[in-house]
Parts: sequence; C-alpha cells; structure tokens
Amino acid sequence: MDRVVRVALLGAGTVGAGVLRILRDNADAVADRAGTRIEVTRVAVRDPSRPREGLPAGAEVVTDPVAAATASDVDVVVEVMGGLEPAGSAIAAALGAGRPVVTANKALIADRGPALAELARANGTTLHYEAAVAGAIPIIRPLRESLAGDRVTRVVGILNGTTNHILTRMSEDGADFADVLADAQAAGFAEADPSADVDGHDAAAKTAILATLAYGAAVHDADVHREGIRGITAADLRVASRLGYVIKLLGIANEVDGRIGVRVHPAMLPADHPLASVRGVFNAVYVEADATGPLMFYGRGAGALPTGAAVVGDLVVTARDLVRGASAGEEAPPRPADIRPIDALRTQYCVRLEVDDRPGVLAEVARVFGAHDVSIAQVWQDGVDDAAELVLITHRAREADLRATVDELGSAAPVRRVAGVVRVEAEALAG
Amino acid sequence: MDRVVRVALLGAGTVGAGVLRILRDNADAVADRAGTRIEVTRVAVRDPSRPREGLPAGAEVVTDPVAAATASDVDVVVEVMGGLEPAGSAIAAALGAGRPVVTANKALIADRGPALAELARANGTTLHYEAAVAGAIPIIRPLRESLAGDRVTRVVGILNGTTNHILTRMSEDGADFADVLADAQAAGFAEADPSADVDGHDAAAKTAILATLAYGAAVHDADVHREGIRGITAADLRVASRLGYVIKLLGIANEVDGRIGVRVHPAMLPADHPLASVRGVFNAVYVEADATGPLMFYGRGAGALPTGAAVVGDLVVTARDLVRGASAGEEAPPRPADIRPIDALRTQYCVRLEVDDRPGVLAEVARVFGAHDVSIAQVWQDGVDDAAELVLITHRAREADLRATVDELGSAAPVRRVAGVVRVEAEALAG
Repeated sequence: MDRVVRVALLGAGTVGAGVLRILRDNADAVADRAGTRIEVTRVAVRDPSRPREGLPAGAEVVTDPVAAATASDVDVVVEVMGGLEPAGSAIAAALGAGRPVVTANKALIADRGPALAELARANGTTLHYEAAVAGAIPIIRPLRESLAGDRVTRVVGILNGTTNHILTRMSEDGADFADVLADAQAAGFAEADPSADVDGHDAAAKTAILATLAYGAAVHDADVHREGIRGITAADLRVASRLGYVIKLLGIANEVDGRIGVRVHPAMLPADHPLASVRGVFNAVYVEADATGPLMFYGRGAGALPTGAAVVGDLVVTARDLVRGASAGEEAPPRPADIRPIDALRTQYCVRLEVDDRPGVLAEVARVFGAHDVSIAQVWQDGVDDAAELVLITHRAREADLRATVDELGSAAPVRRVAGVVRVEAEALAG
Repeated sequence: MDRVVRVALLGAGTVGAGVLRILRDNADAVADRAGTRIEVTRVAVRDPSRPREGLPAGAEVVTDPVAAATASDVDVVVEVMGGLEPAGSAIAAALGAGRPVVTANKALIADRGPALAELARANGTTLHYEAAVAGAIPIIRPLRESLAGDRVTRVVGILNGTTNHILTRMSEDGADFADVLADAQAAGFAEADPSADVDGHDAAAKTAILATLAYGAAVHDADVHREGIRGITAADLRVASRLGYVIKLLGIANEVDGRIGVRVHPAMLPADHPLASVRGVFNAVYVEADATGPLMFYGRGAGALPTGAAVVGDLVVTARDLVRGASAGEEAPPRPADIRPIDALRTQYCVRLEVDDRPGVLAEVARVFGAHDVSIAQVWQDGVDDAAELVLITHRAREADLRATVDELGSAAPVRRVAGVVRVEAEALAG
C-alpha cells in the first residue's frame, strides 16, 4: 500500500496525544481498515517551544491552526483543540476548501454543527464528530446510519461522567454532594470550576447534538432546558431508592406533534431500566425508535484514549472515503427546530414534603394536587415526631400544572417545607 | 429529489414484510437521509400465487432470485430469504455484476462471508449485513468503522433471544428447562425443532461473523466450539445466584498470541457485569478494546421490524454511496484465521459435586484439583443428610487440565456425582 493520507492535527493536548498514540501503536491495522496509510504531517499547537512526546518524526509543528487546516499538502483535518475559536475558523476554512474534517469539539458542534455540516455538503466534503458525544461510544454513526430508516421516538442519555460518578457515590455511600465533589476535584476528574459538569452545560451540548441527528432539525445548546445536580440531596437519593428508583442526570430529547423537547435535568429512573445500572464515570445512550425498539449504547464517555479512539475511527472512515472517491452525498440538511417549551412537558414527578403529622393533612395536600389537575399515582408517608415526610409520585402531568401545585403547596398550612421535586422518567414515553 | 434507487427484494417473508413496511411508512425520512428515493421494483418469492399484503404497487413479483438480482433495471439487491441456497447464488451473481447487496442472512455470512466480501471488493461494490447479527443492534458497523483504529481484545455476546429468554425464566421463576422450552414453543418464539437455538448453532454463526470483523481473520461457523443450554439445570442457576453470578449463553471471541478463540457455551457472569442484566429476548454485545475500553450494545435481536430496520439502515447507507459515487474501497480482506483449540482455553470454572459428608472429603477433592495444576479460588459447601453439595470455583486454568480433573473426580471415592461444570467468564480477560 503506497498511498498516504496526510493529516493536519489541530491541538496536541490530552485527546491529541491519545490520537497520536493510537495511530502509532495501530498503524498497520489502521492502514488495513482504511485502505491507505495515515500520517500526521502537521501539528498546530499554541506553544511550539513546549517539549511534547509522541509527535511523529517529520511532522511540522506550527502555531496557526487556520493555515495548517488549509495547507496544500494536507488531505484531512483533525481538530482536537476544543473551544469555539480558533477551532471554528479553522474548521470552516478547511470545509470551505473542500477538505474533510474530523472533530471532537462538542461545544462547537452544539453551537454551529448544522451550519458546518451544510458547509461541508456545499463544498462536497464531510464533517465527522463521533468523539463529541459520549467519548468512545459509537452513537453519532448509529443515529445517522443504522437508524436512518426508522423514526426515533426518544433519546435518553447519561452523557456526563463526572456527575454520574458523583450521583453514584452519593447513592451507594450515602455521601453528600459537596463531599463527593471535593473528592472528585482532588482526584482530578472534576474541574476546579465544576459548573460545566454539575450545572449540566456539558450534557446540554451533547443532548443538542443528539437531538439534531435524531430528528433532522437544528437544535442548539441554547435550546436545551437545563438543570444541574447541585440541588440533589442524599435524602432525595434515599427516598428514590426506597421507592425502587435511581437518580441520574439525564439528557432527553423527544418529538411530540412535530415539536422537539430537549432537556437536561436529574430524574428518577426505575431501578430495572437499562440506564439505571450505568455506574461511575461511564456514559450510556438509550434510544427508542418505532421499528427498532429500544437500543442502548454503553461505554467510556471521556479520557484521552477512548476519545482518541473515536477520533481515529472517524479518521479511518474519512480516509476510506478518500480512497473510494466518494463525494459528500446529498443527505437533506436539518430543518429549523420547533422547540417545545418546558412548561408544555408532560411527565411524572416525585414531590417530597415535610408536613404536620395530624389528621386531615393528606386530604389537604391531595386537594391541592387535584385543584391543578395533577393526578397522584403513589403516596408514601413516614412519621418523625410530630412531623411527617410525605412522598407523592404523580401520574403524567403538565410541567406548568405541577409548578402551580408546588407553589400552592409551599404556602399551604400543613406543609412545613417542599423538600424536593424530581421528575420521573418512566418506561412509558414522556410527552 | 427526482433520483430513484431501485431495489430487488429477494424474499417476502417476515423480515421482507418488515422491510417493505418501514420503507412505506418512512419513505420521506428515508429519502432525506439517503439523498435519493428508494423503491422496491422487484420482489422474488417462492410462490407468487400466494396473496401478500404490503407489496408496493408496480413491483414485479418473480420467482427466480438470481434473475431478479441481476436484472438490468435494479440498483441494489436486498436478500431476506435466508438459507444458503439459492440466496448464496443470487448474492454472488449480484456482486459479480458489480451490484451492491444488503443481506440479513447470518447462516450465509457465517459460512461464506469473507469470500463474498472479497467478491464485492473485486467487483468494486459493497456487501452489508448489519441485520445478520443481533437484529436491530448496530454492531457490524461499529466494529468495521468506530473501532477501526483500535485493537479489540474480547467480544462477548448474548446473541440468541430464545435461549436468553429460557435462562431468564429458569433463573427468575426457578422453572425447569423442558417446561420453559415447551411454553416458548407454545407461544411461538421457540421452533418446534429448537436445536438451532438451544444447541447454540444460531449463536455460533453470529459469533463467527463478529470474530471475523473484530480480528480481520476469516472465521467460519464450523470453527466455533459450541455447547448449548440443554445441560443447564435449575440447580446450576440457583448455585450461580447464591455465589453472585448469572448464567448466560455467551458467544465469545478473543485473540491470544495471534490465535483466535471462538466459542459458544453457557457461562457464569458476575451479577454486576453489564451483560448480566440483559433479560428475556434481548440481545447485547460487549466489546473490549485497548484504547476504547469496554463498550456494550443492547437491543432487540430478532423480529420483523427490528431486523427490517437494520436492513433499511444498510440500504440507506448503500443508496447514499450510490449517490456519492463511492467505489468499494480498499479495505484489506480478512487473512486466514489461526483458530485456538478449546483445549488450550484458559478460563475459570465452577464445578459442582455431590460428595459424602465425612471428614477428609474436601482434602481428597482438593488434592485432585492440585494434581492437575488447577488452583481453587472459592469453595462453598452445604450438607444434606449424609451427603453434601460442594461447589468450587477455580482460578484460571487450562481447559484440558480442568477436564482431566473432572474425569478423575468422577471416579474418586468420596464423589458421588459431578453435578455440573460451568465456565466462569469473569471481568479479567480469559485466555
């Protein structure tokens, strides 16, 4: 095999190092699968004076990613620098020059994915981003290809390893959020500023990407209703467990009457749901489609080698396409998305109340639910001295009605405190 | 979009009906994803006089699949008739004419997949068979593409829904094999002759296909060491459960020192293994790879619509390639496989013995294990009158040594009966 595909690698941080290592260690297998050798001939870095291991001999180290992306002796651009700029300009320049791009950049794809995909198509080339969602897990390609003939009814993902680790520890050790977060920060897998993870920004970007692919509509991360896990307490997890549920931070997309709902929030899942057993830093994506039924994809959501492997997989597909002389194809671009507001959501809720322990309290609480058209599916009560904990799981109700219920409960005489409200994502499709 | 890709559908049974229904119900979405409309213009059936619902208006119904596959007004051939012939001849004729083929035929691919793939490549066209393994679950494409840059260390699959249903019922209801099988036959999801399922033939064919893709070596179903589930008793499941395991019929492929081990047999899995929670008729494939780490793919393994959806997914990819003008590519053909014999397997074993309940028995039993170089990891004993049940789990040992141990135990004085021997597939890699 004497053909060579030449790669410009933009970024040589954690993921970039993973990509270089995999290409080096598996060079022969990669060549067999791609039908061509793949060589990194340029590497764009911010600080070229910093010593780096694992750079291929003969690769030119440069500082301008846009110039590297458009150099005439480059066949494919691999972007692993992250962030919107200059990554976005470099990718746009490459695609504009008809050059295929592989990226792991979830923030960029969540913000500009549909526009970049259209740019690729218009210039007869391809944009792949398997590594941008759920790291090593192949989910982009199954949505684009395997499910291409089916109608996706719901996508539910555990898309952030840090928060899943925190919730797993809180649930299994009874630990508090703050303590587990501090441990994770000390161990280096939660950031000093944990907001991207614990406030759901990271999961929201990934959910937007999944929704775009599942429904062929351009969903951006700003469209995603987002709640993080800072409000989840050990008590929430204990109550969930007692009722046969776990609590996970979920990214959910579904379509009802042509409107797309996209949301990231903690939710209770039945303990026998396939997603419930996804522990620690692992990610998983559960997809329901009309003909296919349920599917689940499980694996590592982050890390240099898992993410690098997903990038190299895309690179092999891209190189194979170059060998095959394939054009970009004529897949229809995503249509504008009609986003369903969170108020119109219909799902189940678990409401935890601290109430006076005296006759008539349950009747008064139940009356408030009924007044707002929220029907109760399950009640559980436990007395503590003169107070009681009252846990109610509703049937499917409208989010707006549930909020009005909780507002009124907050000022109802026998209710001392609304201790927690968590959505319940049951097997049946939430609307 | 005025372009049309014309399909010859070979077979209009269960899966064929599913394919037709999906193409009809999702015609617009399929066209958007493929970049072209897709129309079934010919349908080859055995008995054209039989009334059939769902045939597209204008499709010509014919009886000769080879002629349909090579007709000049056909762009893609979809084979869903099953069996080696005439399906094999029709597929070979299509590929020989440079025409792309999509098939759901696991028996054919397990028997002749590498040769047919090479025929496709030599004639500049493609052969897709996602539906041949694990029905709706996308596993072929992830192995060929997403993991193309990685080294797969092990593939472990629950690949047969009927046997997984039987083992799930036996485990959860304490029922006997024969009773559950009879129920499944009455309910129509086990065949009157259940051998293909319960003796592991179906799982072996799928395991051969997965091994071929994972290791780039031509593994055929005859290469697979195969044991079914007829010998598994309610007692085996009870003991497994007590020790924290489940029993599943697994298809396993791995590579040690360039030799490929491929086997289908019942095995004990730790209850917290991701595959352990796969219940009923569901399938799942667990893949471990160097850089990627563990991945699991879960979904429906059979049924008209799930299998049909996988076929349509392949058909969309094929149609997209036609639109893109893509050639077959230059992926290296699989090399001949060097198959490791089962005697050279190194794994853990659970041995269940009925022994006399008197002093010295454990010492005598342990001596036999030691004499054959089999080291014991765990022992559990329970007395029943003057007899005792003795359960031993070994460390990793050579299959040949374990067999010699069991042979000698069978004639050892204190052993009344070797009640069961089940391999243990633990987290650590079996050799």
